[in-house]
Amino acid sequence: MEIKVLKDILGANDQIAGNNRQLLDSNGIFAVNLMASPGAGKTSLILQTIKQLAGKASLGVIEGDVSSSIDAETIAKEGVPAVQINTGGECHLEAGMTRNALDNLPLKDIDILFIENVGNLICPVEFNLGEHKKVLIASVPEGDDKPVKYPAMFHEADAVVINKTDLLPYVKFDMDSFVKTIQELNGKANIFQVSCTTGQGIERWVSWLLAESKKKPA
Amino acid sequence: MEIKVLKDILGANDQIAGNNRQLLDSNGIFAVNLMASPGAGKTSLILQTIKQLAGKASLGVIEGDVSSSIDAETIAKEGVPAVQINTGGECHLEAGMTRNALDNLPLKDIDILFIENVGNLICPVEFNLGEHKKVLIASVPEGDDKPVKYPAMFHEADAVVINKTDLLPYVKFDMDSFVKTIQELNGKANIFQVSCTTGQGIERWVSWLLAESKKKPA
Repeated sequence: MEIKVLKDILGANDQIAGNNRQLLDSNGIFAVNLMASPGAGKTSLILQTIKQLAGKASLGVIEGDVSSSIDAETIAKEGVPAVQINTGGECHLEAGMTRNALDNLPLKDIDILFIENVGNLICPVEFNLGEHKKVLIASVPEGDDKPVKYPAMFHEADAVVINKTDLLPYVKFDMDSFVKTIQELNGKANIFQVSCTTGQGIERWVSWLLAESKKKPA
Repeated sequence: MEIKVLKDILGANDQIAGNNRQLLDSNGIFAVNLMASPGAGKTSLILQTIKQLAGKASLGVIEGDVSSSIDAETIAKEGVPAVQINTGGECHLEAGMTRNALDNLPLKDIDILFIENVGNLICPVEFNLGEHKKVLIASVPEGDDKPVKYPAMFHEADAVVINKTDLLPYVKFDMDSFVKTIQELNGKANIFQVSCTTGQGIERWVSWLLAESKKKPA
């Protein structure tokens, strides 16, 4: 009985996610579902990407948080259309919430849409939102054991952005072992090492993003 | 209907949590539910606490992770009884899982029990495990906006341990504002600033823990 309820929820979510994808595609929008632990640097990566993509692509942002509108306000200050979703207590975004946000964005003006999920390394991966790519941000101070402890999200990610490389001199973190563990879990993941504080490595990430966005159906 | 199912789950959890508490109390064990984002330093804090409490109290540890037994192995190497719970996909510990772990620990030999929850700043706070205190670890590189974005756990914590203070020179983090926000959300929370890397501030945390553990019913 309980399993049936869960199946219904995921089934309904997938159906709405499919509708979201159609809406995105019909507007020529490439959408990225950005997932990470709290504080790994999701908003910082979006801000760096906005800076690098100025004049090359128009962005839009959906911000997911349990509470507050800090992130959407930060993005809006950059002149980028942003909608904040507050989930209440929910630990992840769902396709229905995403649809509500899409209905409040100027879709015709957006080339690349970031959907910043709730800070959580576990549940968000269970819920498709209609996105084209799932991107996981891992940050150096979280430690190099995270792929082993939270394998599902590392397994599903199309790209893993390793952020806060500027802190490598100050923490215990074996980058080679970290990258190798990700590759073992997920042979298809593109891996980027960046620092959103210094800007190091951002260019390579943005080039990949831009190239992927151009593969979207016309 | 779905709400009723959820109520049943939480009701059943609370009942088992009550039984856990009786079992803990009858064995004179003081139990702490340790919650945090992935990589905030839960296991590191336990390791530092083990070192400081040598000869003063006997510890036991329950490790909760989605996957792997890295943490329990690390603890066991210190000669402390440890049990690993793998939740499969679940993003939090529940009282029933905790009970299974308790049945596999030498309860008569333990004064203070750490229950390290799954790395997640949202869901674990919904599920009582039978613990005496809830302790939240926040880490400096996660940023000083976390209490505003994840208020529920900060609101419920009996103590907040702010870890990785050794990284303060290298990241943007306003400690005064962070502490003030926590105090506004939660007037009762004891706040500790520590570095599990350098050991700074650990003594004050361990003194509080030891004092609280002695308030337990005989």
